[in-house]
Amino acid sequence: MKTLWEQHYAQRTQRIKSSAIRELLKLAERKDVISFAGGLPAAESFPLKQLEQAMQRVIAQSDGAAFQYSTTEGYLPLRDMIARHTSRYGLNITPDNLLITAGSQQGLDLLGRIFINPGDRILVEAPTYLGALQAWNAYGAEYISVPVDQDGMKMDVLEAMLRTGPKFIYVLPNFQNPSGVTLSAARRLKLVELANHYGVPIIEDDPYGQLRYEGKHIPAVAVLDTKGRDDCDTCYRGNVIYLSTFSKVLAPGLRVAWVVAAPEVIEKLVQAKQGADLQTATFNQMLIYQVAREGFLDHHIKSLRTLYRTRRDAMLNAMQEHFPQAVQWTHPEGGLFLWATLPEGIDSAEVLRAAIQERVAFVPGASFHANGQGANTMRLNFSNATPEQIYEGIARLGQVLETQLDQVIATP
Amino acid sequence: MKTLWEQHYAQRTQRIKSSAIRELLKLAERKDVISFAGGLPAAESFPLKQLEQAMQRVIAQSDGAAFQYSTTEGYLPLRDMIARHTSRYGLNITPDNLLITAGSQQGLDLLGRIFINPGDRILVEAPTYLGALQAWNAYGAEYISVPVDQDGMKMDVLEAMLRTGPKFIYVLPNFQNPSGVTLSAARRLKLVELANHYGVPIIEDDPYGQLRYEGKHIPAVAVLDTKGRDDCDTCYRGNVIYLSTFSKVLAPGLRVAWVVAAPEVIEKLVQAKQGADLQTATFNQMLIYQVAREGFLDHHIKSLRTLYRTRRDAMLNAMQEHFPQAVQWTHPEGGLFLWATLPEGIDSAEVLRAAIQERVAFVPGASFHANGQGANTMRLNFSNATPEQIYEGIARLGQVLETQLDQVIATP
Repeated sequence: MKTLWEQHYAQRTQRIKSSAIRELLKLAERKDVISFAGGLPAAESFPLKQLEQAMQRVIAQSDGAAFQYSTTEGYLPLRDMIARHTSRYGLNITPDNLLITAGSQQGLDLLGRIFINPGDRILVEAPTYLGALQAWNAYGAEYISVPVDQDGMKMDVLEAMLRTGPKFIYVLPNFQNPSGVTLSAARRLKLVELANHYGVPIIEDDPYGQLRYEGKHIPAVAVLDTKGRDDCDTCYRGNVIYLSTFSKVLAPGLRVAWVVAAPEVIEKLVQAKQGADLQTATFNQMLIYQVAREGFLDHHIKSLRTLYRTRRDAMLNAMQEHFPQAVQWTHPEGGLFLWATLPEGIDSAEVLRAAIQERVAFVPGASFHANGQGANTMRLNFSNATPEQIYEGIARLGQVLETQLDQVIATP
Repeated sequence: MKTLWEQHYAQRTQRIKSSAIRELLKLAERKDVISFAGGLPAAESFPLKQLEQAMQRVIAQSDGAAFQYSTTEGYLPLRDMIARHTSRYGLNITPDNLLITAGSQQGLDLLGRIFINPGDRILVEAPTYLGALQAWNAYGAEYISVPVDQDGMKMDVLEAMLRTGPKFIYVLPNFQNPSGVTLSAARRLKLVELANHYGVPIIEDDPYGQLRYEGKHIPAVAVLDTKGRDDCDTCYRGNVIYLSTFSKVLAPGLRVAWVVAAPEVIEKLVQAKQGADLQTATFNQMLIYQVAREGFLDHHIKSLRTLYRTRRDAMLNAMQEHFPQAVQWTHPEGGLFLWATLPEGIDSAEVLRAAIQERVAFVPGASFHANGQGANTMRLNFSNATPEQIYEGIARLGQVLETQLDQVIATP
């Protein structure tokens, strides 16, 4: 008798789904398609020589330990290094504030696991990072969307929504994925103040903070959170949980990221991670420590900024030249993404269908909305295509948009 | 105001706990302690030269792809290789039957995620693998324990319990962690028959199957499950979900394992993994493929068998010499663990306390029981100590046991 698997799945499995868009985007993987759909760093930026040298050193020095089981918390020298780095940016932490995770996606998953009861409402930006919604759907989360403008999450809406008892606030303050906008310094202060006032924790997701191409660095929300506190030790015990990663500044294929939180939260996350995957790969942690320990990443990040700024500018210029006047877009000061808004009534999923015919792809914006809105928006990635490809792809996309807009205007 | 984190945790977090035993075992990490507590392969067995050569080849050949994001399902050439290997052992599968996971622990976690509703009862062996309980506790699982004897899970008890509507059966047929016993061929056939009859899926966890030191290979439960089926294609669609790993035959610090299941189950697992950690590290998958593709692992596993058989024999001999007559233990035909049973009324947690004073450690058996039993049992690992350390450690432990047994007998 055949096993009727469909009858065996847990209820939560119904909320874990692949979308139609994902299926469509598989077409974007064809070699002849210029894709602005992914969120991939430029593969040609990976420092292969340094990685290879570091590997040899790890193998020579670790005497097998690099391939053995190790602690769930993560490799201590790496946590030490991240603690020093974080303190340099104004957030005094110790290794007890840190958990190493298999990418920030796992950090989001583990946070969902320890915090979210079915039906809990999470305050998210509209638009927000799709992967966070995917992670938290599995734990039965509901969402309250707070709109974003060119200065990030709107604080007046946030305050109104905080009065409805949400579980936590999820925010991507720097060059947000997907919109590319940055939360202003004034709003960060307001966010910290409101969150503390209403007793609601903040999850600050910061994968791109180091990738700023113009404008001045703005302190992290977690840094601002410590300002008003009189903690005199070097261990952070505040209201913000901060995530960052080596994926965008070194290599995503190694799957190494970190969570900063109060030690008691880290302890719970460690217990959750034991059940989830025991630990992050020992070798990968030692490798990254070896690559980064003598300051190589500082230089590397500078070259990434130059590379990606050029690509961002190429995309902005090409859009200026080729996109219809009725389309608006953001001007990100860093990160990997641009965000375009089409006139109301245009469905970007339809635009994608047409675009793939013309061998160019992006992600329709509705996927990034927990509230079902955003059908007329689109996310464009500029980090993983050369300026030549960007010009060509945006020209094609501009043409597709012209046609789509004409059709809609022509339709009574 | 300080954040009251304790008030924010999800209900399931109360089931995710570090045990007192785990705290005690931290003491076993001291250099002067001979530890039989962990489940670690011998670090001196890791083939560093082959790993280093394979890394160089991966970096030279992959052109950066080894460090880039890749698919959630896993690296196709690796899945292809595992499919061929699995088919060689009698289970015809294709890459569509495979998901690569970050260790088998993640496989267990994802299975819990897609199958377990709070309150669902899982049939487990008594004793069973602690990590499975840790993974599934987070999803609200309850357990029904089926006792194990020298031939593995007892089929008469299993049948009675199958009538109570469990969600699935979890079994480790080869050199089970923790007991070291192997499910006999006759019982495997019975298990397949019963599971099909009652319509209950089987999760077969097989990390040690390749590490057999004596006796004849017994086909996997999944292999036996296909015998009675008339599926004529090469894709497995049966009632068993099979897990295995590179952790015990190559290196656990790379965190690469796999799940075999019907394609529709793999599809659900892939969706769950997207939310959990996006994908297993690209580099680690390519590295293992490169190490294994030309048959190196076959030779390597042969040398592991020799190494571990010597250590198992050392432990068995030392126990014969030094353990009190009232203690019984298993004779595992493979794997990494031995299991000892003390007279009723002796608490192995107390024995551990005394043992650590004598600089020797093991894991008390109660942790491996979902039903609160097993206080008089203990798990001993023999793979991660030299024969000399094993003789010395078992001699110390024998002394501790003599004293403990004398005390209990002396107590009225």
